[in-house]
Amino acid sequence: MAKISALSGFPEWLPSERLVEQHVIDVFREVAELHGFSGIETRAVEPLEQLLRKGEIDKEVYVLRRLHAEDEDASAAGAGSDPARTLGLHFDLTVPLARYVLEHQNDLAFPLRRYQVQKVWRGERPQDGRFREFYQADLDVIGQDTLPGHIEAEVAVVMAEILARLPLPAVTIHANTRKLSEGFFRSIGLEDHTAVLRALDKLPKIGEEAVRDLLLGEAGASIEQADACLAFAQIRTRDASFAEQVRELGGRGEMVEEGIEELTAVVERVEAAVPGVILADLSIARGLDYYTGTVFESFVEGHEGLGSICSGGRYDSLATDNRHSYPGVGLSIGLSRLVARMLSAQMVRATRPVPTCVLVSVADEGSRSDSDAVARALRSRGIPCEVAPTAAKLGKQIRYADRRGIPFVWFPSADGEHEVKDIRSGEQSSADVATWQPPAKDRTVRIVPADGA
Amino acid sequence: MAKISALSGFPEWLPSERLVEQHVIDVFREVAELHGFSGIETRAVEPLEQLLRKGEIDKEVYVLRRLHAEDEDASAAGAGSDPARTLGLHFDLTVPLARYVLEHQNDLAFPLRRYQVQKVWRGERPQDGRFREFYQADLDVIGQDTLPGHIEAEVAVVMAEILARLPLPAVTIHANTRKLSEGFFRSIGLEDHTAVLRALDKLPKIGEEAVRDLLLGEAGASIEQADACLAFAQIRTRDASFAEQVRELGGRGEMVEEGIEELTAVVERVEAAVPGVILADLSIARGLDYYTGTVFESFVEGHEGLGSICSGGRYDSLATDNRHSYPGVGLSIGLSRLVARMLSAQMVRATRPVPTCVLVSVADEGSRSDSDAVARALRSRGIPCEVAPTAAKLGKQIRYADRRGIPFVWFPSADGEHEVKDIRSGEQSSADVATWQPPAKDRTVRIVPADGA
Repeated sequence: MAKISALSGFPEWLPSERLVEQHVIDVFREVAELHGFSGIETRAVEPLEQLLRKGEIDKEVYVLRRLHAEDEDASAAGAGSDPARTLGLHFDLTVPLARYVLEHQNDLAFPLRRYQVQKVWRGERPQDGRFREFYQADLDVIGQDTLPGHIEAEVAVVMAEILARLPLPAVTIHANTRKLSEGFFRSIGLEDHTAVLRALDKLPKIGEEAVRDLLLGEAGASIEQADACLAFAQIRTRDASFAEQVRELGGRGEMVEEGIEELTAVVERVEAAVPGVILADLSIARGLDYYTGTVFESFVEGHEGLGSICSGGRYDSLATDNRHSYPGVGLSIGLSRLVARMLSAQMVRATRPVPTCVLVSVADEGSRSDSDAVARALRSRGIPCEVAPTAAKLGKQIRYADRRGIPFVWFPSADGEHEVKDIRSGEQSSADVATWQPPAKDRTVRIVPADGA
Repeated sequence: MAKISALSGFPEWLPSERLVEQHVIDVFREVAELHGFSGIETRAVEPLEQLLRKGEIDKEVYVLRRLHAEDEDASAAGAGSDPARTLGLHFDLTVPLARYVLEHQNDLAFPLRRYQVQKVWRGERPQDGRFREFYQADLDVIGQDTLPGHIEAEVAVVMAEILARLPLPAVTIHANTRKLSEGFFRSIGLEDHTAVLRALDKLPKIGEEAVRDLLLGEAGASIEQADACLAFAQIRTRDASFAEQVRELGGRGEMVEEGIEELTAVVERVEAAVPGVILADLSIARGLDYYTGTVFESFVEGHEGLGSICSGGRYDSLATDNRHSYPGVGLSIGLSRLVARMLSAQMVRATRPVPTCVLVSVADEGSRSDSDAVARALRSRGIPCEVAPTAAKLGKQIRYADRRGIPFVWFPSADGEHEVKDIRSGEQSSADVATWQPPAKDRTVRIVPADGA
């Protein structure tokens, strides 16, 4: 037998851990569907040509080839180096969505409300502690040619509800908008807003003094301008009061006022739907040169070092062909990274490691069909059951249930006098297969905060 | 913009089609968990060395390399050709399960009851009409060193319940067992049972006459022996009466009787759980040289040309190390192939193409927050809603709902006199946000037989 070892960067969960991941995916799906989002999946591969259109990320692509690709197959399976024919694994769900929208535009209703939870692959160096295979969970609304601005708030509301339902410490969604930042920099006389954003983006890493130097040097700011930018980036409010602070710092003009209006709408609409989650945070700069409207990052209280667990915003053009352009608003959760932290920091636990609620014991192999019938009756009422694998001594069957984490053991009886034992308390009572109910908390396995019951 | 085209062999569904695939996965998961099976996922890649241990399939493996793999990375990402270090995409879920069981054996409880629904990849020639990327849905019970025989019936019961719950024409699970076939061939004097099985396996393809020639030639059978084998392969019974027919054809001895006992147990136990699904079919030969006990294939009535949609059986050793061996029983559904047929043959349909039950209309942008509040109230009672994207004329909002397939449009009112319209019947009535319920059949999107309501 070959030596077996874990592959760095390819996380894999034990059954009880997978329950946590599955729960996060289930919550995401449930909330997204409650808001009328359709689930789709795209193929795992795209032509390399498509994947390389975002230049920066090309080093991270895994390219495929068939092990025994023959010349005749080169056209189909990417044996050659032609980027139109070579296939690579997708590294996000945005490039595939753009292709899917163009490919199926005649069969889709716009605005398209879609969610997508799939694994993506990146050839990151495993020593950076990054995953090479991980789940992303994306939520986007895509318009055809136009997309109303209020969708930015709507997508944030959906994501806020998802994050609020997850068994996490408090999550805050930090929002900013490009118009506000760019308008502010312009209104205080700084034209190279990209250089300013690039500098401000480094605040968490290099600190205020170093950013000030960058603003003075690379962004061409005066001392007063640099101070105004730094003060601007410190504005954080739970309501619309950020607007007054921006104006006090000298922000004015059409672009600033539009930005204020946009961000106020987002903050107020999210606050109305999920109180306490949204924060106007004018330091959020990442992606403001890619995104064209509101931009979001999200942090977990006490786990800020994890970075943003959910980011996104408004972009003018997901895709374009010679008939249409497709603007969108999207948010994406780095789901595997979040689940890995939930597990390693023991934020949550499954109430038991297996789905099974009841182990139906077997007195002897001759009566196995009676045990089967009991299990069948319980399952028909939605109670997850398994039948003991061997007709061992009852004590051994109870220990088997205990080892698997099954809370109840059922003792069938030929005369109908069944009994059921809660092996945690030791309490045993008579029970009817047609009516017995486990306590609601035990019926199915649940994911609860680590200190929860 | 690059030209966009579908990739042959990589199926992709529209949102309404994906609802069907998701439903099949949901049914699989629900039934598996009711039977106490734990869901796991394994990484998509395995070392090429592991993937090549099953020699026959090696041509179908997709090998990965990082696009810009540098020398220093060769050890981690498979830039080289060392099969221990090169990574390939898994082509089934059995090789990964074997590795997972060995890797995590100290953290797993045995018998391990696991289900797994994941995509697999095979570099098949697309002109053969086969998929290169597809979902498999596997169900296995893995023992440590031992595994009771009755688990063979148990796994078949779970799969029978899954198949019976899917919106399909009648599905029949055909079962045979190795002991019965091998025992029968031996008891009529044929020692090369592998050659006999190989010949019988060709029955559906080449017909009785050609198989008879193979039995006479390659398997060294006499005319009487060949006729007995062909008669044996024609035995199909819904109950244990196959046993008498086998004995009448001259089947006797310990191995035959053990085989009869095994197959009888499977047939009777599955029949008790899901009447009308199981069939003893002694022609099932495929895999009998790999499987060591019962073997299963499943066919959909009227779609026999699709081949077996669900196959598997008992195997003595999924994996072995120097401490333990891991025998198992498993069944696997070729899920994408089945879903593709369900869609192309229009066996099923979604009751609507989107999850949304209610479109909440917007009278004017100034009252959007009122519409948001209505949608929030309905969602809090589990009713999937979306809010109209624009405050267009109400007729246009109704047409929007119609185009998306949303059955109800809600008209909020500032004075609380809300109304809701079923746009299929045109019926409109007053409604209370706190109490209104859609008909149960409309609450969530459902998957129904194509002729169902």
